[in-house]
Amino acid sequence: MSDKTCSFDLENKTAGELLKRNIQEVLPTFLKNVEKTEKNRCVDPENIALLKSTGFTRALQPKAFNGLELEVPEYAPILMEIAENCSSTAWIAGLYAQHAHGLALMSEEVQQDVWGQDENALISSAVAPILECKEKEGGVILDGTWGWSSGCDHADWAMLGFKRKVPELNNMLVPHMAVVPKADYEIIDDWHTAGLKGTGSKTLRLKEVFVPEHRIDTAVALNAGQSKGFGSHPGNIFHAHFINYFGLGFSIASLGMAKSFINLYKEKTSKRVRAYTGANMSDNAPAYMRLAESVLQVRAAETRLKQDWQEIANHCNERKLPDESTSTSWRVSQTYVTNQAVEAVNRLYAASGGSAWFDDNLMQKLWRDVNMAASHAYSDMDVATQTFGRHLMALEPDMGLF
Amino acid sequence: MSDKTCSFDLENKTAGELLKRNIQEVLPTFLKNVEKTEKNRCVDPENIALLKSTGFTRALQPKAFNGLELEVPEYAPILMEIAENCSSTAWIAGLYAQHAHGLALMSEEVQQDVWGQDENALISSAVAPILECKEKEGGVILDGTWGWSSGCDHADWAMLGFKRKVPELNNMLVPHMAVVPKADYEIIDDWHTAGLKGTGSKTLRLKEVFVPEHRIDTAVALNAGQSKGFGSHPGNIFHAHFINYFGLGFSIASLGMAKSFINLYKEKTSKRVRAYTGANMSDNAPAYMRLAESVLQVRAAETRLKQDWQEIANHCNERKLPDESTSTSWRVSQTYVTNQAVEAVNRLYAASGGSAWFDDNLMQKLWRDVNMAASHAYSDMDVATQTFGRHLMALEPDMGLF
Amino acid sequence: MSDKTCSFDLENKTAGELLKRNIQEVLPTFLKNVEKTEKNRCVDPENIALLKSTGFTRALQPKAFNGLELEVPEYAPILMEIAENCSSTAWIAGLYAQHAHGLALMSEEVQQDVWGQDENALISSAVAPILECKEKEGGVILDGTWGWSSGCDHADWAMLGFKRKVPELNNMLVPHMAVVPKADYEIIDDWHTAGLKGTGSKTLRLKEVFVPEHRIDTAVALNAGQSKGFGSHPGNIFHAHFINYFGLGFSIASLGMAKSFINLYKEKTSKRVRAYTGANMSDNAPAYMRLAESVLQVRAAETRLKQDWQEIANHCNERKLPDESTSTSWRVSQTYVTNQAVEAVNRLYAASGGSAWFDDNLMQKLWRDVNMAASHAYSDMDVATQTFGRHLMALEPDMGLF
Amino acid sequence: MSDKTCSFDLENKTAGELLKRNIQEVLPTFLKNVEKTEKNRCVDPENIALLKSTGFTRALQPKAFNGLELEVPEYAPILMEIAENCSSTAWIAGLYAQHAHGLALMSEEVQQDVWGQDENALISSAVAPILECKEKEGGVILDGTWGWSSGCDHADWAMLGFKRKVPELNNMLVPHMAVVPKADYEIIDDWHTAGLKGTGSKTLRLKEVFVPEHRIDTAVALNAGQSKGFGSHPGNIFHAHFINYFGLGFSIASLGMAKSFINLYKEKTSKRVRAYTGANMSDNAPAYMRLAESVLQVRAAETRLKQDWQEIANHCNERKLPDESTSTSWRVSQTYVTNQAVEAVNRLYAASGGSAWFDDNLMQKLWRDVNMAASHAYSDMDVATQTFGRHLMALEPDMGLF
Repeated sequence: MSDKTCSFDLENKTAGELLKRNIQEVLPTFLKNVEKTEKNRCVDPENIALLKSTGFTRALQPKAFNGLELEVPEYAPILMEIAENCSSTAWIAGLYAQHAHGLALMSEEVQQDVWGQDENALISSAVAPILECKEKEGGVILDGTWGWSSGCDHADWAMLGFKRKVPELNNMLVPHMAVVPKADYEIIDDWHTAGLKGTGSKTLRLKEVFVPEHRIDTAVALNAGQSKGFGSHPGNIFHAHFINYFGLGFSIASLGMAKSFINLYKEKTSKRVRAYTGANMSDNAPAYMRLAESVLQVRAAETRLKQDWQEIANHCNERKLPDESTSTSWRVSQTYVTNQAVEAVNRLYAASGGSAWFDDNLMQKLWRDVNMAASHAYSDMDVATQTFGRHLMALEPDMGLF
Repeated sequence: MSDKTCSFDLENKTAGELLKRNIQEVLPTFLKNVEKTEKNRCVDPENIALLKSTGFTRALQPKAFNGLELEVPEYAPILMEIAENCSSTAWIAGLYAQHAHGLALMSEEVQQDVWGQDENALISSAVAPILECKEKEGGVILDGTWGWSSGCDHADWAMLGFKRKVPELNNMLVPHMAVVPKADYEIIDDWHTAGLKGTGSKTLRLKEVFVPEHRIDTAVALNAGQSKGFGSHPGNIFHAHFINYFGLGFSIASLGMAKSFINLYKEKTSKRVRAYTGANMSDNAPAYMRLAESVLQVRAAETRLKQDWQEIANHCNERKLPDESTSTSWRVSQTYVTNQAVEAVNRLYAASGGSAWFDDNLMQKLWRDVNMAASHAYSDMDVATQTFGRHLMALEPDMGLF
Repeated sequence: MSDKTCSFDLENKTAGELLKRNIQEVLPTFLKNVEKTEKNRCVDPENIALLKSTGFTRALQPKAFNGLELEVPEYAPILMEIAENCSSTAWIAGLYAQHAHGLALMSEEVQQDVWGQDENALISSAVAPILECKEKEGGVILDGTWGWSSGCDHADWAMLGFKRKVPELNNMLVPHMAVVPKADYEIIDDWHTAGLKGTGSKTLRLKEVFVPEHRIDTAVALNAGQSKGFGSHPGNIFHAHFINYFGLGFSIASLGMAKSFINLYKEKTSKRVRAYTGANMSDNAPAYMRLAESVLQVRAAETRLKQDWQEIANHCNERKLPDESTSTSWRVSQTYVTNQAVEAVNRLYAASGGSAWFDDNLMQKLWRDVNMAASHAYSDMDVATQTFGRHLMALEPDMGLF
Repeated sequence: MSDKTCSFDLENKTAGELLKRNIQEVLPTFLKNVEKTEKNRCVDPENIALLKSTGFTRALQPKAFNGLELEVPEYAPILMEIAENCSSTAWIAGLYAQHAHGLALMSEEVQQDVWGQDENALISSAVAPILECKEKEGGVILDGTWGWSSGCDHADWAMLGFKRKVPELNNMLVPHMAVVPKADYEIIDDWHTAGLKGTGSKTLRLKEVFVPEHRIDTAVALNAGQSKGFGSHPGNIFHAHFINYFGLGFSIASLGMAKSFINLYKEKTSKRVRAYTGANMSDNAPAYMRLAESVLQVRAAETRLKQDWQEIANHCNERKLPDESTSTSWRVSQTYVTNQAVEAVNRLYAASGGSAWFDDNLMQKLWRDVNMAASHAYSDMDVATQTFGRHLMALEPDMGLF
């Protein structure tokens, strides 16, 4: 396909159908670049160019900035196909697209700052509100390091969490989010991990950086339909909470990895013979019973996820913000699905034999990647079951979680 | 509600909506009769009368015999609600309704035999083709015992599996199905079990019973759109295989039991204090984490099941018989769901304490019932994963299974 | 064997060897009485007579009262053999023997009260300290109901937990234990449960019963080598904490049930054919893989338990009271083992088919019994992992647990 | 310690006690070299020198060649300590020691060939009998590649499996084992794996290599007390089957890794705070409950393993070769233990958070290593449960397994 931004009004197809077709054309390239992406601990630039040119990074972006404003049920399966070909590309592609959705909830000025010049501008993030800002006339000063910024190498801006005293709340420290241009931070090349290497989730260092007020919102406002730019776009998908889009990709990527793993297992097992005896593995009962169980598990998980995607879309289309119960349910559902995907992979990998451990065998990489995906705070089953369990028992939320 | 057969064309509601309303009215009665049903090892006659008067037993019956011809997505949730109130009532109610669907695939004469006089006639079954028939001019002779005939006490006919030599197949022994009136068999009161006591799945004894040809079909024909009455009714739901309706209820009943158990657990845990210390259990982390995990599991399982119900309905409505892959997928999906329900219950019961073991606590009964539900051949996970695994690996089916 | 109390100095055998031989002679009787014991919700009197005449109930009793003073590694395997034949008999036999050990730690007067007339006197218990006593000159008044008193029908005394204000501790309510004669309480016939029916763990009702001081000790003293009778017997086994002997039997009984279940599964599977196809189950891979896994699990659990028994004996023989770490370790080990036994049984029962659910099949009974065994507070895995986990992390004990 | 071969008759200690002390002195060096060992895909030469100088590689070697002839219960815990410090060093150290035991069962000439000049000579192996030899006067010709030869870089000889026609058995192809000097093969540097990188389990290439008859034995003879050198040494430990010593190390190494992981988890959790909230993880219930469960699991597994070690030693000391049942039991016990270790690690790693994934965190390395350990054919749970299950059901062994 051409390297210029695609146009989406052609051929009587919806934007989602066109994006899907565009992405399917470039999947072989993503697969081809897997090794480079992992080795360089950074998604290959060719992939990034394609994510932009296909329009994927603008999937959830406002039409006002040439975005596609896809509904979740259109968007998610495309991301899953990317994950079936390259875990790390899917990981950061999802975040870029989802961050664009988040930006559309912030002030119109910051949207103009980011997309005014370049509607393909990308945003990485580091949202954990660990550090406290200093106050300065007209904004705040951020100083320190922000870790885990997946895809920062290719991003033009960063969305950073921090704590700020709120005078109206008796100077309580409250989580905020700021958007900061790449010029304002340095990337520390510290992403040396056993999994998801290609995500390049490095640390950002800010030195006394001033952030003007219009680039800031509180986490609470972003998750309550009260942020500065809420309502600034007519598209239904922006009638939503930040959090319900921000975390979408983790479960999608995990399921995609699991589906890819299942295919590799099936292929490998059909050819595998035992080292000692030469016995064929494909008609070994436990080998295919494990396969069946993992397929059943992934299939049930995916069906559940699709149901949630539709519920999210329904809420948006009915312009109904989810209540806490619904929002919690969507969130823990994603964690559950991610961990089901991990179980499905681990069950199969445990029976894949030593040859699945070689560097040139994608199974070992997928196993590392999907297990690391589940190590993300958002995907932590202990956190999810505590959060959801307290909710089900009508107990107060435990603020120590998440 | 009245004891006569309900009419379903009123109030601008669909037959499914009316049945749902009718059933919801009688659920408290089903719940009230749980103890009697278990003690008598037989669903209480009051329940049977209500299953008939509400129209439930005719849910999948042809309109020609005053049936409702409900699509599966309408039918299944109603059955699940019954299961949430009485496992055994749901178990046999599902079988009655599903057997009616099966009968509608057999010859018009046998349909007339069964429903001509009494459109509320009920059929129980014992489908395992263990015994071989003897041949006799115009039909066959059945002689011996047929076990596991759930709901036989209230049934008027029985659907029995047997083996018969087929001359065209070189006298190979082939599974057949026959429909036999109650007058032709004796019920042996041998249902003394640790679970699903109320299903009264007793043994039928036949002594040299002649079954005329029109009451017989082969299992293969019934599962291939080639049985004697296939096409005898215009309703879409009869454009289906016997097997895809026959086994519907086991997973539905199991999920219903699990949902009921979850509610009991939530209620009990919110009130429970530790015997030794008086500590309140409701804010004990593992107690509510188990709850969360079981809710997530049951929810995912139910979503998957709903997806399958819709697929079955779509096939019927498109008049497309499922291929082997699809049919296998539906079948193992049900087994998977049943076992997910069992896991969900067992996780909670293991943390419910000794008081959940008393006879007057429904938790112990549901635990016994749902575990026994999963012991049915149709719900055997080892069989399902072997069947499905062989299918996924493109191996020949193992005829030793099922 | 004769019905009089056995003598143990014959034949150059140790008391343990003789008891083992005696018990092995009567195991068939225990097995024969299983059905009666369950039906009557009470261990058959014939079994009780044999437990006395063989000397089993005096296994851990002081020699001064004609006890055997067996070391745990001698005692435990004998109890396990009983459990392999009758769960409920083992359950209460263990408690009788272990309570005798507890009594030997209390005042010499109460020992005389209980054993002075009848060295075969049996003690049941209800140790949860729920109710508070009233004070009366020279003792306390107990009033109310005490639940879960396994084996109370055949016992002559009861060991009851209660709370009492301790002036020296600022009137803090502190758990105490009292021993009360059968004449002082009424047994309420309320043991109607789904498992361990034969234990007859009924409720005791006390009406304003006075208990003199010499029949009372604090739980703390009993578990610290500071109770009134600590040191009153020369035998090493009394140089121990109450708790380390009191709870011994639950894991032993559970393992015994699991071993019995494994044998039944092996036997049944070797004969089982599939209902639908007549295929032989004994060479079905998942059937024997489950067997192998359960055997490995039970074997590892038993080895661990034996190690603990030896450690307990070593401590006694070295006259070393266990520190908190050791005591916690023994306790959670038992809970772990009990739950391993349950897992082993549940894995097999899930693949045993519907016929294993009939009342005349011991598998269903063992499944109910072993799962109920694990529902005991002492066997609660959530409690054990919290207790042990806090210990491992060097956190303060959570007094809300146990 | 000095770099020359240690002497073991000093200080009134047993050889085992001295070796233990020697090894404990060098453990910090093993730990220090972990990174180098992994990076070079080869255990650091310094470690090898220490394994020789401490005497470890001669732990199971005949005294005639300056070996220690340790009994398994002395040997195994020392190897476990090595594993707690470096997985790969333990992996190959175990194999070197165990191969020495195997060599002592082969002809006296081949023992002289290997140890005559250098009693510290090391043997790696590649025992899967995949290729068939060609016959040549006085021996055989081996030609081809032999994979998975752990520790081959530092070894002087290789023990290779192959198939050979046996005229007496109607020219059936039968597994044999040959010992070949390093000069006869080339090492292919193809060990690029996701785990156990340091084991350097590379491929050996032989080009038309002649192996004289005295360096050959059949697998059957080696596992039946009928190999050429059986009885050539007076030491009890050589009164054993090859297989019972050959596979000893895998479970030991896995347990050592698990114990090391548990310590790291405990340490990390005690310091860990949640990224988003700063909440302390050490008093988070699920975090320490997972710890407790893994400790209980590893402890039970280790106890079981110790029991087997003792049984092996007892057999040797009683000069009793194990029957098939006993031998199978030891083998599957090891597989079970290995997989228990993996479960224990995976349970904890799943709750260790993203920071445990960085290259400089040993947790990720141990997780990869222990999971790969379990992927070895010897540690395959499906194989073990099939083998053992068939044995328990008294079915014929399935020769397609192992």
